[in-house]
Amino acid sequence: MNLRTYKSASERRVALEQNLNITLPVIGTFSLSEEIASTRNCENMIGAVQIPMGVAGPLLIDGQEAKGEFYIPLATTEGALVASVNRGIKSITQSGGANAISTKIGISRAPVFQVESLKAGKVLIQWAQDNFKKIKELTEATSSHLTLLEIKSFQVGKNVYLRFRFDTDDAMGMNMATIATTSAVLEIEKNTQAICVAVSGNMCVDKKPNFLNFIEGRGVSASAEAVISKEILKDVLKTTSEEIFNVYQRKVVHGSILSGTIGANAQIANILTAIFLATGQDAAHIAEASAAVTTVEVLNNGGIYISVSIPDLPIGTVGGGTQLETQKEALSILKLDKAKNGKNTQIFAEIIASTALAGELSLLASLAENSLACAHTTLGRGKKI
Amino acid sequence: MNLRTYKSASERRVALEQNLNITLPVIGTFSLSEEIASTRNCENMIGAVQIPMGVAGPLLIDGQEAKGEFYIPLATTEGALVASVNRGIKSITQSGGANAISTKIGISRAPVFQVESLKAGKVLIQWAQDNFKKIKELTEATSSHLTLLEIKSFQVGKNVYLRFRFDTDDAMGMNMATIATTSAVLEIEKNTQAICVAVSGNMCVDKKPNFLNFIEGRGVSASAEAVISKEILKDVLKTTSEEIFNVYQRKVVHGSILSGTIGANAQIANILTAIFLATGQDAAHIAEASAAVTTVEVLNNGGIYISVSIPDLPIGTVGGGTQLETQKEALSILKLDKAKNGKNTQIFAEIIASTALAGELSLLASLAENSLACAHTTLGRGKKI
Amino acid sequence: MNLRTYKSASERRVALEQNLNITLPVIGTFSLSEEIASTRNCENMIGAVQIPMGVAGPLLIDGQEAKGEFYIPLATTEGALVASVNRGIKSITQSGGANAISTKIGISRAPVFQVESLKAGKVLIQWAQDNFKKIKELTEATSSHLTLLEIKSFQVGKNVYLRFRFDTDDAMGMNMATIATTSAVLEIEKNTQAICVAVSGNMCVDKKPNFLNFIEGRGVSASAEAVISKEILKDVLKTTSEEIFNVYQRKVVHGSILSGTIGANAQIANILTAIFLATGQDAAHIAEASAAVTTVEVLNNGGIYISVSIPDLPIGTVGGGTQLETQKEALSILKLDKAKNGKNTQIFAEIIASTALAGELSLLASLAENSLACAHTTLGRGKKI
Amino acid sequence: MNLRTYKSASERRVALEQNLNITLPVIGTFSLSEEIASTRNCENMIGAVQIPMGVAGPLLIDGQEAKGEFYIPLATTEGALVASVNRGIKSITQSGGANAISTKIGISRAPVFQVESLKAGKVLIQWAQDNFKKIKELTEATSSHLTLLEIKSFQVGKNVYLRFRFDTDDAMGMNMATIATTSAVLEIEKNTQAICVAVSGNMCVDKKPNFLNFIEGRGVSASAEAVISKEILKDVLKTTSEEIFNVYQRKVVHGSILSGTIGANAQIANILTAIFLATGQDAAHIAEASAAVTTVEVLNNGGIYISVSIPDLPIGTVGGGTQLETQKEALSILKLDKAKNGKNTQIFAEIIASTALAGELSLLASLAENSLACAHTTLGRGKKI
Repeated sequence: MNLRTYKSASERRVALEQNLNITLPVIGTFSLSEEIASTRNCENMIGAVQIPMGVAGPLLIDGQEAKGEFYIPLATTEGALVASVNRGIKSITQSGGANAISTKIGISRAPVFQVESLKAGKVLIQWAQDNFKKIKELTEATSSHLTLLEIKSFQVGKNVYLRFRFDTDDAMGMNMATIATTSAVLEIEKNTQAICVAVSGNMCVDKKPNFLNFIEGRGVSASAEAVISKEILKDVLKTTSEEIFNVYQRKVVHGSILSGTIGANAQIANILTAIFLATGQDAAHIAEASAAVTTVEVLNNGGIYISVSIPDLPIGTVGGGTQLETQKEALSILKLDKAKNGKNTQIFAEIIASTALAGELSLLASLAENSLACAHTTLGRGKKI
Repeated sequence: MNLRTYKSASERRVALEQNLNITLPVIGTFSLSEEIASTRNCENMIGAVQIPMGVAGPLLIDGQEAKGEFYIPLATTEGALVASVNRGIKSITQSGGANAISTKIGISRAPVFQVESLKAGKVLIQWAQDNFKKIKELTEATSSHLTLLEIKSFQVGKNVYLRFRFDTDDAMGMNMATIATTSAVLEIEKNTQAICVAVSGNMCVDKKPNFLNFIEGRGVSASAEAVISKEILKDVLKTTSEEIFNVYQRKVVHGSILSGTIGANAQIANILTAIFLATGQDAAHIAEASAAVTTVEVLNNGGIYISVSIPDLPIGTVGGGTQLETQKEALSILKLDKAKNGKNTQIFAEIIASTALAGELSLLASLAENSLACAHTTLGRGKKI
Repeated sequence: MNLRTYKSASERRVALEQNLNITLPVIGTFSLSEEIASTRNCENMIGAVQIPMGVAGPLLIDGQEAKGEFYIPLATTEGALVASVNRGIKSITQSGGANAISTKIGISRAPVFQVESLKAGKVLIQWAQDNFKKIKELTEATSSHLTLLEIKSFQVGKNVYLRFRFDTDDAMGMNMATIATTSAVLEIEKNTQAICVAVSGNMCVDKKPNFLNFIEGRGVSASAEAVISKEILKDVLKTTSEEIFNVYQRKVVHGSILSGTIGANAQIANILTAIFLATGQDAAHIAEASAAVTTVEVLNNGGIYISVSIPDLPIGTVGGGTQLETQKEALSILKLDKAKNGKNTQIFAEIIASTALAGELSLLASLAENSLACAHTTLGRGKKI
Repeated sequence: MNLRTYKSASERRVALEQNLNITLPVIGTFSLSEEIASTRNCENMIGAVQIPMGVAGPLLIDGQEAKGEFYIPLATTEGALVASVNRGIKSITQSGGANAISTKIGISRAPVFQVESLKAGKVLIQWAQDNFKKIKELTEATSSHLTLLEIKSFQVGKNVYLRFRFDTDDAMGMNMATIATTSAVLEIEKNTQAICVAVSGNMCVDKKPNFLNFIEGRGVSASAEAVISKEILKDVLKTTSEEIFNVYQRKVVHGSILSGTIGANAQIANILTAIFLATGQDAAHIAEASAAVTTVEVLNNGGIYISVSIPDLPIGTVGGGTQLETQKEALSILKLDKAKNGKNTQIFAEIIASTALAGELSLLASLAENSLACAHTTLGRGKKI
């Protein structure tokens, strides 16, 4: 069976059903546009997978860019996740909302060049620095939505990596960045003795867990914070600042340090994945975006300060999966289906960080509450720590 | 608008549409069972997101457990991914197929206990060792599908982490493991002075990029390998062993080392994500599963040996997202919708590893091919490296 | 000038002086035995470097193995280090001393084997498991001071790593372990199709910063803890529990997480290096031993709990640099110049951990104190955080 | 016994001898200046530890800054190390010498500031950027040997880290940098709402194994390379390019990746430590400096290309331990005891990298040779891989 000989998802699906002697009725019943999906997003299409989408909110955010109340679309198959996030959102909104900030680091692409020697590598790096303006013009000529922000260089043996960082407007921009980088590569090869071995030299770093992106950032870097009062901790979250901090310190801090985790958080990947899937982001980017840091501080008044920082969010509101109907509708729930002066990805990043904050708060509280329960059952034995 | 007051996805969706003054017609048009999804997978459901599903194959595998030809369902929004994987699959199958091995490491859950002192921590650890048999009975009493394999201990300051590893049959098993661990925790608290602060102490490690899982493994650990002849490299992949190795070494090896990446590979997260989404796995696990290693060796006959190793695949063929119709149908494409003596997850893992192998081969070849192109354009200038 | 043609340090030094037209009078004036040093420790000897040795103490320890008061020899060129450690020691001893525990993990050596295929690798690993008893006998026949504790296996592509762990009595044991491993390697090569490519395959891991040793431990793993009262914090350390914790959390916890540090501590490498140098340990092991974790907790009574955990201390009290006179004398200050039923390295590790604890306490207090000073100068402006 | 009451090393040593009923004659017999050592380098001095110093060379270097033949002083207690390095040096020098490059990254110090909120943190960072010129003037006023190069900022929750990088002329410069940073901190506190919690916030990163320094560099970053011909591989090193590469790939590359090592090399910490100790560098810096990368490539003519890159060498030729007599003499062997227009540390770094290169080459060759031996013994059984 040659999958490429079929002209439509249904033809291909039928052939597959016959070949394997199975039926795929639900995969075959989809409402997104086959024309868009099969030409832009997925070859050999046979249908669509469906993931239930829930909604949490309203989440009040006073961000640098994101302002107001938001309902958050979450696509997940993990029971209790939406409910858990919603509890965190309720606590935060009742506490006056989340604050958030963001910075557009830009998407990065890092070709690797082979050079003859260490000194030849230095020459290449110097050339790239000296000709930054020319390279900027060349790369920016490939798209009206792209701005070259920086070229950062790394060298080891005969290998030189030039890490290009681009502002790509409302798009995640990986493809745009690759095209732009290619134009720079050709210019570099023309003017130096270096040879480009791969337009992506794994220093981008795209879709791998790594410390480089964690330290330098990638896509959009965003943080969110909230102050939760003693009363809300008690009434909504059924816990106290001391209990939450105890869980935070032993689990998030020491557990992450001991396990060699990049970053330190409770469950940020869960929230990122649910929003990414709902809104057409590439879930493979969870490999890098999940390296995030949560902080908790006990306040003198019995409340807590809680924050999350996510240095690497490769997200967009146009292009890629966002052009599919269900995903575009999910973006409309966030009021992000229309352009806003290149600020969409920062607004989006602040919403994501604020929702992740809600997830952290809720899980830490749940664990603290269980701990209390455990402790309660053992009180009779007079344990003290 | 209180989202919880609505009884169905459509009621809730309509309320949301009115509240936000938007329409969500495509999200609202889904064919999966709302009853299952809304009660087991997703609270506050408003509909479903749809992700196009393609298919690649047939992929010939001679695995330890997986044997025969397989068609691989891939749900993705990244154009060219299915085609790229398919090209790798074609090369591998024409070369005689992939070999694969796997080991069931088991899903892990690591509660953190607070103890009074270092010595009290040692006492706790000793107690857990001495009473392994009792704990095994207790945990296994919580499910007929669960077997306790090991308790590994870590200690720092007043914190003790007991990392439980369970065989959970055909299920990914995180929930099962949590329930079983809770029963062990209660027994431990009853018999020692330790207090459980959180049933998950981040040493599990669930859904974070980390070295502990990479080194110890988690879920199923699987590897796949293939030998690709000089002819297939030339005819199907348009490259040579030297060129592929050159890309491999400078990109995958040195790029990964320099960027502080966990593992070293070209694009394994892409393939994992597409299979995970198609088959109802939890895509948040990409945070840990993406830490994988690819190796390439040049053979004397002009061919290459290529392998991938993925130490941490938290996967299942029952439970969680696999019970949704589209996902279950995708599993039927892999012949994994029915139980096979507890071997399903290993068969699945070997298929995943073999498909990831195809993705690596194809991307490395593409980059090598481009590199050739670049080199070609510069031949006139007499570059030699 | 052929350095090997000279028969003594003085001949060689004179030749070097003439060749370079310099004088090396102080290097040439040493009191350690040239005969021992030049035949066992250092080829092409020209003299000795001298590093000032100070002493701190007495440090009261109630360890699992180390018990009593100890004076700590510290060889360093960093002004203020001995004084700083001594202040921490004073605080700890006045507080009733440090508690400490230790575990002999054993020194590890991990040969890498080349195999034909993934399945051949599995066969090798299985063979090693099935023949553990035979390998144990073979390796232990190479030295009466060596016990094989475990063989842990790792596999990727055509590479299999067998990580041998040995108890080597009072010696650090790297050479002993290499000899023993070599005997095992020959037996493995005789009985399997595997070929040993290098007796050290970098999974040992010897003298590199790495997560494997941090997670699994190496040499001796040791921890120490102390409770410091509010009064001693105030009188000796000029600070409070809140201030120390504030420094700890922002510097040691968050600074280490953000910088991608293995472990999290303030200055443990300083203390390890000073003791290593004084006592003839190999300072190159600082690369791995420095990955350590410090914890601080605020107590309800205004005191603090502080601990350090050092999972990887490759140390010995016989062999290597310990046979040199100055180093042996330094070990006599610690009462470790004579054998004690194989417990020497654990006693030593607990002393090291307790001294590192003193260094952590002292530095955190110093920083807290400065912070107070800073805060003080700014009080007039009414800053509040 | 109060150690501080004694006025000289001999008084203190005698008191310690009496207290412990031991004798310390060799520690007490030293030739370095007690006056310098006891006042600048080591409190509570009782004498000196002596470490045998050998010499290797001549090593021919054609560096960016280091040029000519060098003899390398190595202080070590590890038998065979000097001989091994010397063999590598011989191979490199006979091959025409090592090439080397270096960059002064500068020593870094990163205070951590506590701020009220995420937005307050952004304000602080912006202020530091806007007032870079003023801060530069202030810090440079603290020393005529110091130049502020950069302030890089990191933010998480209420914590802001400003990582200052300074050129400190021929000194390693940690103390200088701390003093300069303190002056900047006071200015920042005066002009913003931020409070400095610790002048070192662990993002410096000083004396810990970490990815931040590995990625950004610290002190001096240096690389060295050499081409070793087929003949020298055979005659001097008793091996071939294929064998060396086989060891390199399986041990250095895959062993380092699998063990979660920062960087990838064979034994660079050994060489760094021996030079550091001989020349009065702080051996605690091995914790960070040991994160280095070695590359090997097989050449078409049967030779190899080999390189090392060490991104983080916190070294100096004045101040600290370099002012002690034996250490100063060792620097004179390297012709580094006199100032050379601020180039001393770069010359030194290139020498260190070139010597490390020799160590890598020699160890890889030794392992390759053994492997051959092993393979030889098994040839009778017809093993083929």
